[in-house]
Amino acid sequence: MTHAHELHRERAPKKLGFFVITVSTSRFERMSKREVVVDESGDRIKEAVIRNGHEVKGYTLVPDEKIRILKAVLDAILTEGVDVIVTTGGTGYTKSDITVETIRGILDREVEGFGEVFRALSLSDPKVGPASFLSKSSAGVIAGKVIFMLPGSPDAVSLAMEKLVIPESPHLIYLVRRE
Amino acid sequence: MTHAHELHRERAPKKLGFFVITVSTSRFERMSKREVVVDESGDRIKEAVIRNGHEVKGYTLVPDEKIRILKAVLDAILTEGVDVIVTTGGTGYTKSDITVETIRGILDREVEGFGEVFRALSLSDPKVGPASFLSKSSAGVIAGKVIFMLPGSPDAVSLAMEKLVIPESPHLIYLVRRE
Amino acid sequence: MTHAHELHRERAPKKLGFFVITVSTSRFERMSKREVVVDESGDRIKEAVIRNGHEVKGYTLVPDEKIRILKAVLDAILTEGVDVIVTTGGTGYTKSDITVETIRGILDREVEGFGEVFRALSLSDPKVGPASFLSKSSAGVIAGKVIFMLPGSPDAVSLAMEKLVIPESPHLIYLVRRE
Amino acid sequence: MTHAHELHRERAPKKLGFFVITVSTSRFERMSKREVVVDESGDRIKEAVIRNGHEVKGYTLVPDEKIRILKAVLDAILTEGVDVIVTTGGTGYTKSDITVETIRGILDREVEGFGEVFRALSLSDPKVGPASFLSKSSAGVIAGKVIFMLPGSPDAVSLAMEKLVIPESPHLIYLVRRE
Amino acid sequence: MTHAHELHRERAPKKLGFFVITVSTSRFERMSKREVVVDESGDRIKEAVIRNGHEVKGYTLVPDEKIRILKAVLDAILTEGVDVIVTTGGTGYTKSDITVETIRGILDREVEGFGEVFRALSLSDPKVGPASFLSKSSAGVIAGKVIFMLPGSPDAVSLAMEKLVIPESPHLIYLVRRE
Amino acid sequence: MTHAHELHRERAPKKLGFFVITVSTSRFERMSKREVVVDESGDRIKEAVIRNGHEVKGYTLVPDEKIRILKAVLDAILTEGVDVIVTTGGTGYTKSDITVETIRGILDREVEGFGEVFRALSLSDPKVGPASFLSKSSAGVIAGKVIFMLPGSPDAVSLAMEKLVIPESPHLIYLVRRE
Ligand SMILES: [Mg+2]
Ligand SMILES: [Mg+2]
Ligand SMILES: [Mg+2]
Ligand SMILES: [Mg+2]
Repeated sequence: MTHAHELHRERAPKKLGFFVITVSTSRFERMSKREVVVDESGDRIKEAVIRNGHEVKGYTLVPDEKIRILKAVLDAILTEGVDVIVTTGGTGYTKSDITVETIRGILDREVEGFGEVFRALSLSDPKVGPASFLSKSSAGVIAGKVIFMLPGSPDAVSLAMEKLVIPESPHLIYLVRRE
Repeated sequence: MTHAHELHRERAPKKLGFFVITVSTSRFERMSKREVVVDESGDRIKEAVIRNGHEVKGYTLVPDEKIRILKAVLDAILTEGVDVIVTTGGTGYTKSDITVETIRGILDREVEGFGEVFRALSLSDPKVGPASFLSKSSAGVIAGKVIFMLPGSPDAVSLAMEKLVIPESPHLIYLVRRE
Repeated sequence: MTHAHELHRERAPKKLGFFVITVSTSRFERMSKREVVVDESGDRIKEAVIRNGHEVKGYTLVPDEKIRILKAVLDAILTEGVDVIVTTGGTGYTKSDITVETIRGILDREVEGFGEVFRALSLSDPKVGPASFLSKSSAGVIAGKVIFMLPGSPDAVSLAMEKLVIPESPHLIYLVRRE
Repeated sequence: MTHAHELHRERAPKKLGFFVITVSTSRFERMSKREVVVDESGDRIKEAVIRNGHEVKGYTLVPDEKIRILKAVLDAILTEGVDVIVTTGGTGYTKSDITVETIRGILDREVEGFGEVFRALSLSDPKVGPASFLSKSSAGVIAGKVIFMLPGSPDAVSLAMEKLVIPESPHLIYLVRRE
Repeated sequence: MTHAHELHRERAPKKLGFFVITVSTSRFERMSKREVVVDESGDRIKEAVIRNGHEVKGYTLVPDEKIRILKAVLDAILTEGVDVIVTTGGTGYTKSDITVETIRGILDREVEGFGEVFRALSLSDPKVGPASFLSKSSAGVIAGKVIFMLPGSPDAVSLAMEKLVIPESPHLIYLVRRE
Repeated sequence: MTHAHELHRERAPKKLGFFVITVSTSRFERMSKREVVVDESGDRIKEAVIRNGHEVKGYTLVPDEKIRILKAVLDAILTEGVDVIVTTGGTGYTKSDITVETIRGILDREVEGFGEVFRALSLSDPKVGPASFLSKSSAGVIAGKVIFMLPGSPDAVSLAMEKLVIPESPHLIYLVRRE
């Protein structure tokens, strides 16, 4: 992929607005009790966004509940200046893990290759290896914006942000919005 | 993926019960005629199970027929002590290959990443290479148990057992069953 | 994958008939105005087919329109001697990119692993890297023939033809047609 | 619908084998405790089968559990001489009602019109009226046999048997089995 | 359907909370320009709710836009005391009609029979007749609540409210919520 | 449904172009052998079209084969002046009946209510009665045109044309094409 890709990169927006959604029932409950909440994965996403010259337009923490997850995604979409939404958590095979199934129902298009490429990258990461198949991480397009659904693990989040989300979001946003 | 994964591994069951299902019309016909049946792939699965300290709770050989495949899977699920079901055969693109399509219809959840990661591993295996895309091998969760649908080739079976099924089944079973 | 695979390769047809379909609104419009049309990706597919001893049975250029794409695929299927159809273009995330969604609706079976393995190969190609997740390239079986849906980029097309389509088509055609 | 339909009716089998499956957790629990179980709906199905000159080849009572329902259907299909399977129960909107969703996953084809026509008939039955929309009763074809999924209410069962299942099963079985 | 149905009716809640959502781009635009908006269908729903002893817990007017429709439904679900949501508009075959497709993506279960029974009733209503097939009106269950998606026509809304929504909602809510 | 419906009817096109497709392997084979082919259902559709002031823009006879059916539909769509396509045949439950499943794969939208309302009408027609559930007749929208998939029986075709297709096509075409 050559000239076209380079051209797209040139025309792609340089600075994007991100909205971060952490999906975690345990953290949500601590927050509801006004206890201290450590959200390392959410922090890593925000940190990567800022370090790369983009902007964090909003952040929210929701439990693993369908209605709350959907509400958070819709609020993010309706937030002024948001281009990219990143969720962390709820992508595994425990009964409560429903992030991907929930968000899939409202996507305009699923970005089928994202989860695959992320799992392929994780497979060759010695910290993950074959356990990479235990996440159903995915991505999609909705209302001219892009949403990435990442696992809850901080290391998985860092890998995805550095190798895929940060490098390719401007390009993908450009593609999704052009006529 | 770090502490959480390590914690899960610690709490995961150490010894699992496996049920092996070979899907092969030619072998089933030889068995029906009381001829000698060599089932190298089935044997390799059983051997890997035992060598790794798990237990073979049952084995059956069925033809590439929807009703027989479903019946075998249900009987396996209802067998006392079974945690993991492994099928071999029927994952290709010949008309008679229907194992994955058949079993997909009864899964609670498909483990979407399994087939992908298995094909990615096969791709870098010099004995398979790009031919890895000719299998539609997959995995899923049903009734608190896990089912892996492997190709019929003995080498493919060995690769899947060694790299994915044996190392990750305890972890996956732990995830699937916790509240 | 061993003896069976080798046996299949031996019995597989040595010379296949290919039909090439370029999906590109801009090229189609130039052609309609009788302007010069450069179709590098289409040319690379044809060149790879011929260089490897197969035959180009037909070629057509269509815009990114559902009805025209479907018509081109059906005409290709009905062309005497065609075994394999290769499309190029329309596999991205721009609104006009509809090749895969359109063709998926008429497949007998999708070859689920093709897009994955192609993206995994592209991921390790330094010219593409993680941008490989931006294509939803796929493949499928229809009426005893095989169809590959490749991206529009000439380099992506060359990679897919050399590593996957040319080496594995005879084998896949053999599998798809045997009883 | 005229000559063809009359011809089909003539050629259709006159005597069919039925298998009856009652899906009811409360009745299953009473049976498990060896208490007296009254299964009026199951009895009405059997009675209608016999009164119309057909044969009851088997009967089973299962709880509203996916694996048990599937097992019962497969055992029914594998029972010698069974042409038609009739289930009663589990077609409503209580969380435990899963009969239709479960069986749908293994059908070769759903008979889309059955539920509709049954609800239309129930709508004009003064005992049901508009409440007819509260059942998701359906039917389907599997392995050359037909399965009807009826509600648990005895009156609904009688209506379905008299107006639809008994009059049309021979015709449908004839259609499903001819080449 | 007899004793069970009568029993359910007895135990069903007598007074329900309704949320009304009118989906209409033209009315939304007039409202945005602070012009007078006549919403006869919305008014008929509210009037039927009140006349039958239930309560209107909220009302909103949204354009035929996916994100706005979803947001309105989620806000309704999260409104204290809401049992039933009724939408009017966007159920036809104009390109902008997307209410049913949009809401379908987030349902826990679709109430398959509702649209059918409503169309069957409309078919025998001389004001509609066969044109009843031009609406894809449906209903569903989400988060222990029920949602009815009615057409935009005031007469259609009155028919649905009188014959189906008002008489059957208490029963359906009872079924959906019991264990 | 009142003013809006009346307004739509007024603005709807008065004269439509129809394309008729008969799906029947037996008739196709007779035609291929240059024997006399009687196609009463096709004739009834054409006759109803003409008698009601519309125009027959084309007619074709195809066997019950996926590729031939799809090709005929696409050719019909691409025929100048065609607004409505009507197929007859292949809507039953014999293995060869694939018209609806085939065409469903290429629809932009299925007109979900058509099959239902047609079966409800057939149910109250003494010549059909409950056997109406044996057809999976449907309709859909594709590329700004409407397609009706009718059964092969001449009486069913007449009922559908008189009560649904002729009266409602202008209205439906108007809806499908307006912005
Ligand atoms: Mg979690
Ligand atoms: Mg085999
Ligand atoms: Mg393009
Ligand atoms: Mg026919």
